[in-house]
Order: sequence, then structure tokens, then C-alpha cells
Amino acid sequence: MNTFLENQNWRYATKKFDATKKITTEDFATLKEAIRLSSSSYGLQPYKIIIIENPEIRAQIKPAAWGQSQIVDASHVIVFANELNYGESGIDGYFKNVSQTREVPVESMKGYMDFMKATITALSDSERNIWSAKQTYLALGNLMNAAAELRIDVTPMEGFVPEQVNEILGLNELGLNATLIATLGYRHEEDATQYFKKVRKSNEELFITL
Amino acid sequence: MNTFLENQNWRYATKKFDATKKITTEDFATLKEAIRLSSSSYGLQPYKIIIIENPEIRAQIKPAAWGQSQIVDASHVIVFANELNYGESGIDGYFKNVSQTREVPVESMKGYMDFMKATITALSDSERNIWSAKQTYLALGNLMNAAAELRIDVTPMEGFVPEQVNEILGLNELGLNATLIATLGYRHEEDATQYFKKVRKSNEELFITL
Repeated sequence: MNTFLENQNWRYATKKFDATKKITTEDFATLKEAIRLSSSSYGLQPYKIIIIENPEIRAQIKPAAWGQSQIVDASHVIVFANELNYGESGIDGYFKNVSQTREVPVESMKGYMDFMKATITALSDSERNIWSAKQTYLALGNLMNAAAELRIDVTPMEGFVPEQVNEILGLNELGLNATLIATLGYRHEEDATQYFKKVRKSNEELFITL
Repeated sequence: MNTFLENQNWRYATKKFDATKKITTEDFATLKEAIRLSSSSYGLQPYKIIIIENPEIRAQIKPAAWGQSQIVDASHVIVFANELNYGESGIDGYFKNVSQTREVPVESMKGYMDFMKATITALSDSERNIWSAKQTYLALGNLMNAAAELRIDVTPMEGFVPEQVNEILGLNELGLNATLIATLGYRHEEDATQYFKKVRKSNEELFITL
């Protein structure tokens, strides 16, 4: 198996997928598990992950995603959507899950639960939505890193019109908002960008030591 | 070497570090490289990574980070800070880097550069700062995942007062804003939470298939 750094150097944002190659069910289950295990603020996972299998929906999304061909050519398409107006019911659900998973009564965690509710409800609606949106970036990172280990390509996208994607996927009714799209599959041999050198800031530019 | 999923299941947000155990220089260089190779919007990396070696500064940050003991007990402390008011000069710097790395003239990329400048300057100041803040979550994810492979513990934190941390680190003068803190090191054997079962949403709750 390759190291994390080898995987990072292998990956790139694929511009053209090979539409004939599909991710296996087993590998896709691994990628879902990588997303599911992602860290998030307080472990709350304030988002949903939408897997778009329907090719007609993918065709509808393409123009809302600046016409990027990966939306229809990739093996799989995943939309990350943060929960809007995340509140006490989400936190109650979390502690119910903790209680069941660890076999401890909810009451024994009341102090921590109250603290969590106080800090999150202290945020304005806008701040809370930004907070939940940020968490989806950690989940995306897990997906990209797990995929690179399996030599599966991922092209992440912020370049789409959220209002249009929300409308197409019916996310408004679910209190969700699309933050990120990931297209997954296998690079086409004709995608010249796979041979380009990776461009990153130098250590000197990126790091400050105090 | 362990798989990505095995690493995910090994890691947890360490509550108590063993203050006697230090990350080696070699391993820390690997973690820095994992951060440096992180994906980001357009590859722009609109942030700086601050490594805090000075124990006095760490002691100053602790009260600004809700008194969390990891700030002083961990082997290393890293602050992620997004660039505020990211603009054309950052994009110019990126294309200069592309030009040098790939040995292509900047002029040949003018169309793409103009497109990038147009989309980013179209954002309001607030939207642009949220955009750059989100990118730091991908960099944090890379750090956490690379560390888990090396069996180095990471506790990520959003729980601090950014204004205070900015003041302590002198980030305001640099046009930076602290978004995340990562404390790194080795779990203390007395940290009981390492034995707790991981709590995550079920597939049924997290995923929607369309």
C-alpha cells in the first residue's frame, strides 16, 4: 500500500473521466464509510450526503455546474449538503446515538449536552449555516483521501449554482443546501492535465513558525 | 501499513496528551508536507499555517481556547489562518507559481486567470473570507489523515476565541484570521476517551440516494 504522501502526489483534479470505467460496489462502500467516519464539529455531522445515481438528474445538474462534463462522465456523483438552521433536535439526536452506541444514559451527559446546545444556539442563523457548511469540507477531504488510496479519481467542485442544485435535488424542502460536488471515477488517458506537475506553495510561503 | 479506514477507526479527538512524548522532526516534516499538498479551491491555498513552538505563546493561547489543556500538553500546536480580503495579488502569485513549476508563460494562461479573478472578485468581502476559511478545513483534514497513518494523535479545535488568538499571534497585521487549531502528539494512557466507541450517524441517516 502507498503512503498518504504518495497518494496525495498521485491525485489531481481530473478534467476528463473515462466514462466506460465504473467504481465497484465494494470500493464505493469503502468511500461511503470514509465519509461516514469523518471528523466534524463536536462529532455532530450536520450534513447529508446525496448520491446521484439517476443519469437524468446528473444531466440536469451539469448546466448548473458551469457545464462541467465530469458531472455526466464520472462513474459516480456525490453532493454534500449542510443542514440549515441546525438546532437542538440535531444535538438531541446525537446524544441519543452516543447513548445507544456507548450504552450510557443520556442524563449522565446532560452537562455536556447543555454546553453544546448553548454554544451552537448562541450562533446567528447565518453563522450556524456557515459552521455546518465548513464541516462538509472535512467529509470531502476524507472522500478524496480514501479514494486516492484506492486509485480512484475525485474532482471536487465548488463551481456550481447552489440555488439551482438545491432546486433540482429538492434540497430546500429538506432544509439542506448544496455546498460541494464530488465527481468520482477513473481518469481518461486523454486527460493531459494528469501529466502536469502539481503546483503548491513552498514551505517558506505557506508556513510561519512562532 | 494500515488502510485509510483502519486509520480512521484508530483516531479520536485526544483529550489528554502524554506531555513527555514528542513528534520526531522527520514525522513532523511529513505532516507539513501533507498540509502543503492539500487540495483547495482552484489550488489557491488562501491561508497560512502557523506552527507555534514558543511555549509562552502556547500558554497565552490556552485561556483563549476555552482552557483546553491540549494547547500546552501536546507535542505540537498548529493554527490554521485564512487570508482575509483575498484578491488579485494572490491569484497573480498563483499563476507565477504555475508558470515556474510547469515552465509555461503566464500569458498563455491569461483566459483562465481572468476567469478566476472575475469569479473571486465577484464575491463580497464577507463571502470571500468564508470561502478562504472553508479551504482550511481541507488542509486540516489532510493533517489529521496523514497523522493517523503515522499513529500520531490530532485534536482539532474550533473552540477558541478567534479575536484573542489573532491578537496573541499578531495575525491582524498579516491580514490573517485564525480558523482552526490542531494539537498534535501522543495520547496519554490515562485518557479514558480513547476506549470509547466511535459515534457516527448510520448510513441510513447520513446518505440519500437519488
